[in-house]
Parts: sequence; structure tokens; C-alpha cells
Amino acid sequence: MAKEKKVEQITDMEVDFAQWYTDVCKKAELIDYSSIKGMFIYRPYGYAIWENIQKTLDSMFKATGHENVMMPMLIPESLLQKEKDHVEGFAPECAWVTYGGNDKLEERYCIRPTSETLFCEHFKTVIQSHRDLPKKYNQWCSVLRWEKTSRPFLRHREFLWQEGHTMHAAEEEAREETMQMLNIYADFMENVLAMPVVKGRKTDKEKFNGAEETYTVECMMHDRKALQAGTSHYFGDGFAKAFDITYTGKDNKLHHPHQTSWGVSTRMIGGIIMTHGDNNGLVLPPRIAPIQAMIIPVAQHKPGVIEAAEDLLNRLQAAGIRAKMDASEQSMGWKAAEYEMKGIPLRVEIGPKDMEKGQCCICRRDSREKVFVPLAELEETAVRLLDEVHDALYQRALANRESNTKVCQTLEEVKTFMEENGGFAKTMWCGDLDCELKMKEEAGVSSRCMPLVQEPVGDTCVCCGKPAKKMIYWGIAY
Amino acid sequence: MAKEKKVEQITDMEVDFAQWYTDVCKKAELIDYSSIKGMFIYRPYGYAIWENIQKTLDSMFKATGHENVMMPMLIPESLLQKEKDHVEGFAPECAWVTYGGNDKLEERYCIRPTSETLFCEHFKTVIQSHRDLPKKYNQWCSVLRWEKTSRPFLRHREFLWQEGHTMHAAEEEAREETMQMLNIYADFMENVLAMPVVKGRKTDKEKFNGAEETYTVECMMHDRKALQAGTSHYFGDGFAKAFDITYTGKDNKLHHPHQTSWGVSTRMIGGIIMTHGDNNGLVLPPRIAPIQAMIIPVAQHKPGVIEAAEDLLNRLQAAGIRAKMDASEQSMGWKAAEYEMKGIPLRVEIGPKDMEKGQCCICRRDSREKVFVPLAELEETAVRLLDEVHDALYQRALANRESNTKVCQTLEEVKTFMEENGGFAKTMWCGDLDCELKMKEEAGVSSRCMPLVQEPVGDTCVCCGKPAKKMIYWGIAY
Repeated sequence: MAKEKKVEQITDMEVDFAQWYTDVCKKAELIDYSSIKGMFIYRPYGYAIWENIQKTLDSMFKATGHENVMMPMLIPESLLQKEKDHVEGFAPECAWVTYGGNDKLEERYCIRPTSETLFCEHFKTVIQSHRDLPKKYNQWCSVLRWEKTSRPFLRHREFLWQEGHTMHAAEEEAREETMQMLNIYADFMENVLAMPVVKGRKTDKEKFNGAEETYTVECMMHDRKALQAGTSHYFGDGFAKAFDITYTGKDNKLHHPHQTSWGVSTRMIGGIIMTHGDNNGLVLPPRIAPIQAMIIPVAQHKPGVIEAAEDLLNRLQAAGIRAKMDASEQSMGWKAAEYEMKGIPLRVEIGPKDMEKGQCCICRRDSREKVFVPLAELEETAVRLLDEVHDALYQRALANRESNTKVCQTLEEVKTFMEENGGFAKTMWCGDLDCELKMKEEAGVSSRCMPLVQEPVGDTCVCCGKPAKKMIYWGIAY
Repeated sequence: MAKEKKVEQITDMEVDFAQWYTDVCKKAELIDYSSIKGMFIYRPYGYAIWENIQKTLDSMFKATGHENVMMPMLIPESLLQKEKDHVEGFAPECAWVTYGGNDKLEERYCIRPTSETLFCEHFKTVIQSHRDLPKKYNQWCSVLRWEKTSRPFLRHREFLWQEGHTMHAAEEEAREETMQMLNIYADFMENVLAMPVVKGRKTDKEKFNGAEETYTVECMMHDRKALQAGTSHYFGDGFAKAFDITYTGKDNKLHHPHQTSWGVSTRMIGGIIMTHGDNNGLVLPPRIAPIQAMIIPVAQHKPGVIEAAEDLLNRLQAAGIRAKMDASEQSMGWKAAEYEMKGIPLRVEIGPKDMEKGQCCICRRDSREKVFVPLAELEETAVRLLDEVHDALYQRALANRESNTKVCQTLEEVKTFMEENGGFAKTMWCGDLDCELKMKEEAGVSSRCMPLVQEPVGDTCVCCGKPAKKMIYWGIAY
């Protein structure tokens, strides 16, 4: 009995981008809502994307000498309070545990919103000597932030992430670690997720609570809004002092170590959707797609078709490609639409006519372009096409960013650009918080970052007109 | 400057097994305490063991058609209450969230002690037709149970585990799933962890809250106590009814699906320690050891020694062995003791004399036996030795279990055996709860399981003397 499933329509992104986004999240079966507002269920297809992200990033972390650990999920209130800026930033959005079984707790515990305090408490016990440094730890876990609003992948009360926490004897080494991890994130996003990034430093207003410096990778989405896709923080010895973490140096004296932390989350999946998706659904970058090629037999009741399709499946899998086959009784139209919705990079079809000609047909998800491929060239073509899809996605996203980034000299110019076009406004800035606040109030933009690669675009602050040395990006952010 | 580290002494297991166990957990750097009682920190070496366990089990789950998902960590109290037996069992040990930021919640949420209720809520939305079945899900996460007592790996308030949750149209299929997962656990424990298991069914008293049947794999530790190392539950349609989960069958009528769940946790690491460890520390089964072979250059200041050791390292790594090298300035004695403490299966030494003879020396952790190996035979010998270590560990554990399992005909006999020897008492049982309770009260034992392979050892119940058909194991459990 054939299924009677229909591929459900999604809203066009030009009509309502936010609705299009939610439709894709639901209809590509990435995520579902739970009965608690803001807490989401990662469905198998969505979670498989995260597993692929984890696998690649984890190997990059390990290759640079990081070790995984697991800290408790609860933080005693007194521990959270040890660093003043940190607690001020996070306490208002903590979920608090007050009962264990039937007993009221003597002290309440929050579910970790981030784990600096837990790591610091542990560092205090495992760091005594300069020989115990560096400590380069990471953990994969979920964290909770009791947000008022929520959106799939972009803003959850509970989200999955990794948080790296490192301690170093020398300030210089900690600063290098901060930059190394920023570069790893940028490398991963560009070369695996096909998302071009702007690497830069956050303003003091936008930096992480308790950090000395925060670095970020900023991406532009299809709707020209900005997404902060990952951050890397340099802490100096502020937490080390607050937590009384010391080590005996080679000079036999006590010193405070220097600290970093860095993280990326399932928010990147939201970034993938909004960077690459189109009106037919999800478009997945091939290097993290759970299924890279879907084989579909055409006229599969004809003799030999299923076997020919299975042969393609086996060959692609043997070539290291994540391939699957759908020989169900759904119609060809349903299958095409379904696997477009799911964003599978390549659809490989083979039927009796193709078999006669010794070929198959490969359809690219990104361009919907079809090519007929001699069977002898299957593996090399598929590998090449996956790379070409990656490159095309990257180039399209880069073109989107470049054509929607504008150098502006005045607040008025920024305001007009944002109203009429949207994107990144590239300006000079004096560095004053007042100007940053005024930009938000009058042009509706927040500072995204001061790019590491500074190209002066003028001499004076876009807002106050005073002399300025910093080039900065502004935008409307998720 | 040479480190002045010392390998710290641990308590002999014959003197104080519990202290020996805690010493190993701490000194092999597997775990640390946090400031919340019963919540532990998994340190890099301990977590690396868990990562290897995860990797192997996860591939076994995926090979049998299971998909990973991630549910929220919080459960509304009203959701937990939907299945009566379940809430009665778990509510007393839940940690309760009552505040989100500064706002008191309208309904309190518990941190998941297990996720049947969350999965059921989701199953209700994704299961409509028989075509949506089976659903075979798993998640890797941590769960919280607010226990009064705690012990590293064995009893945590928060512990890491996997929980599989599946739904099936046919009862028979769900029953097969329950047994399949039990068999996967047994296979994994015996062939990867080198821990012999008894597979069996739990009594009604010992089964999971809300399950129809619970199956278990029971292991005997070195101190002759029992460890329940993994469980697989058959639920029938009890939860499906409580949560109103239905599907339209091929007969076009509504039916309730049949459910299973199954889980193993970091408790298995406690099992590894207490099954294989000795008075020199941890002894790791080779197939999950984070480091399988540690290379140690002897007289490393002599020309060519470091290079020769590096060559061994590269060759072993190329052969797929997880090898590391320690060329630090610690003494040979320190290194030998340290890597014994860490339970690394093979220590590979090479010095000038070995180089002259074209050999290296491999020392087995389990037997401390040393063999000189011609360099040309390095890889094949190392691979063979790792298998031999695995087999020897398994056989030793099996011999321990067999020599400490005794057929008993009377309660008095069980009591004497437990007092004088300890281990598994193998008896007949009538099936009455009263007898089970009396065994606990008078002989201090709990029922472990009714083995799947039933070998009758008499005709009458060990406790009441009435006719009995079930053979059952009793023991003192962790």
C-alpha cells in the first residue's frame, strides 16, 4: 500500500522570512516543540547534523591538544557569585533548583548557563605548579538560560553547545589560545559549513560577562541580518583572582594563571538554514549533511532497476559518501520534493533508460542542475560535485554579504541603508559607549565586531564625528 | 628541571576494598568531587573511557537501526504524573526547578531522572499511522536522582548514560527489541569490557517503575558483590495508554503501540575498576583503554634512543593502536608505577641495549609479564598481546564469578555462604514477594535475576519450601 504522504508547502522566504524559517525547521523534521516554552526537541535529522558538527569540531579540538571533561550541571548560588560581572550577567536568566526530593535545599543551585565558575573551582584543585599548566579542557553539554522569547536553534532556554575552558601560565599563551580557537571556528564555518565569517573583536558593551576581551565570528544571513556564530574569550587573571587559583612558577613564587573560554552551539544550525536555504526548503552544506546522496530508482518495478540502484548505493558508500536509497512506493514527485525539503546535496536517479545508456542522473540540490554521469565515473563525479556544491554555497553566501555591506560615514546614512536595504554598515567609530548606544537607539543597529583586518574607511566616528581609529561593523542581529 | 612527583600509595584491596576503590578513582585521575555532594567531575582520563564506550555502543545502536535525538532536560510535574507507578518511583528523588530568573514558575519542573514521559509526549505528536512505526530512538545525556548516599561512578546524583526509547506496532516486535538490546549490552560487556555477565529477568519487586518486565545484565565484582550493569525494559502499552498514544493500523482502527526502554551508564566504569583492578591501581580492558600502549625510552639521553622510541610510537599508531610516548624527565620507576596506576594495558620500553639487539620490551599490565619482541614483529605482537590481555581479564573475572557462585537449598545455607564467602547464591524460588523480602531481612541478599538460561537446581523454594519452578540468583549489590 502506497503512502499517501504529501510534501507540505512552506511559506516563501520573500513573503515572510521568519515563517519560512520556522516552516523549514518543522517540515525538514529538524526540531519539535516540547510542552515547556523555549525548550525544544532535537529530532533525528536535526540531531544528526549536530553529531556531524561535533565529530569534526571535536577532532579539531583534540588535534590542538584539548581534552574533554564533564562538569556537573548545577552551580551553587555562592559559587556563581564569586565573580561580580559574571553573576550580574547570568543570574537574571538562571533556572533555580530549590528542592531535592521532598527537602528544601539549604542553598539554591542554578542549572549551568555556562560553566566558568565550575571549571574555576576544579582548576583550583588541580593546578598547583607550573608543571600542571596549561590545562586545555572542553565539554559538550547543554546549558540553560531562562529567556523570555524563543526561536528554533537561535534562542532556546536549553541549547546544546561546547564550552572550552583553558588555563595558561603566560598571558601571551592564553592570548594565542583565544585567537587559535577563533581561527578554528572560522576555518570550520567557512570550510565545513560553507558560511563566510567576519572575524573581529566585540566592543566592551557586547563582550562576555567577566571577560577582558571577546572575539567573534559574525555571519550574514539570507535576510541580511547578522548571526553571532561563535565566540572566544580572553579572561586575563580576573577569575583566577576571584577564585584564588595560583600556581608555583619556575621562580618558586605564586602566580595567577591566565584563562580563556570559547563556545559554539546548535545556533549554527539556524545559521546553516538561514544562509543556504531556499523556497524548496533546507539546503545542507555537503560536509555536514547526514545524507550526502539519495539514490532513487526510477520505474523500480522494471527488472534490474532496484539492483542497479543498490549497486550505486554500495559504490558511493564504499567511496566514503554518506548515501541512502529510497525504494519506497512514494511517487517520484514526492521523493524529489521531500529530499529537496531535507536539503540533501545530491539526488541520484537511475532507471531502465539510464541502464541502457550505462549512466545515471545526478541532480544538485543547490542549483537543481541535472547531469548525466557515465556509471564508470560515478564515484569521482559524486565527490567532485559535493565539493562544487560546497564552493557554490560559500560563494553565494559571500556574494550576499559583499553586496549587502556598505561603507557609511554618518548615522543618517546607516539609518537609511538599514531601512532601505539592510546588511552590514561598515564605519569608523570613536570607541565611546555613548555613540554605540545612540546607534542602537537611532538606527536600530548593534555593533557586530571590530574586524581583525582593519581597513580604515574614514577618519571620524560615524556617530559623533570625533577622530576615530577603529573600523567597525553594525547590523541587526539574531 | 625534573619533576618531583611521586606515585601515591593506594590502600590494598584486601585491607579495605571500598577505600581501595576510592583511591583508584582519585589517583588514576578518573574523577573528582565537586562542591555539591554526590555530583562528580569526570576528569579527562575518566571521560576518555566514557567516550570510547559511547563510540562503540553508539555504532552498535546505529547498526541496529536506532537514531539519536535530544529531549529537554526538564519535565513538568504534571507530565511526570501521567503514569502512576513511574511517578511514585521517581518523584521522591527528583530535583525541582521552581524559579526561572526572578519569577516563580507556575508549575515546577524536575530535572529528568529518566525520560520515558518526555519521549511519550513526543511520540504522541509523531506517531499517527502504522507507517510511522517503529520509532527507535536513543539519547546520550545526564540524568539526576537526588540520592542520599553517593560513590564515584556507582551512585551519583548526576550521572551520564544513554537511554533508548522505542515504539512498535506489534507486541512481539517490542519484546524482540527488549531482548536484542539486552544481548547488545551483554555482547559489549563481555567482548569489549571483558566483564562476564549473567543475563536474566528482574523480579517484580526489582523491576523498573512502570515497566511490565525488566531484564538485566548482572556482573560479579572482585569483592564478590553484584553490579547491575545495564537494563532493558518491556513496557507493553501501559505508557501508551496513559499518554493516549495511538496509531491507525492497516485495519484502519486505532491501536496503542508497544514500548521499550533500555540504558547503561558511567556505572560501567565502576564495574571495570572493581572487576579488573589490582593493588597497583586500575587495569583497563584494552578495547576501551584511552591509551593502549605507552612507549618509554630507556636511558633517553643516549644517542638515537628518542628517535627509536618515536619510531615505535609511529608504527603502533599506524597499526591502529592508541599509543603514546612519555619522554619526560621522570624516573623509570615513576613512569612504570604511574602507568600501572592508570591501567594502560601495554608498556613498551626501548633503550640502547634493546636497539643493539633489534628488540623492544613489552610489559603487560594485567600479568606484569615482560616479553622481548624483535622490532620486525612489533605490530603483530602488540595486537596479539592486546587480545591476550582482554581474554585473560575476561577469564580471570569469569573464574572469580564461578568459584564464588554456590547452589543453596535453604535460607540458612544462603546466610552462611554470604557471611563466610559472599558471591552469588543460586537457588530455586517460588515467586512470592514474601520470600524475597524474607531473604533480604534474614540473609541480607537481594534478588539479582532469574537467568534466561534456567538450570533447575532443586524443586522447592529456598525460603518457604513450597514447589518452585524459577532458578534465581541472590547477592549483595552495589
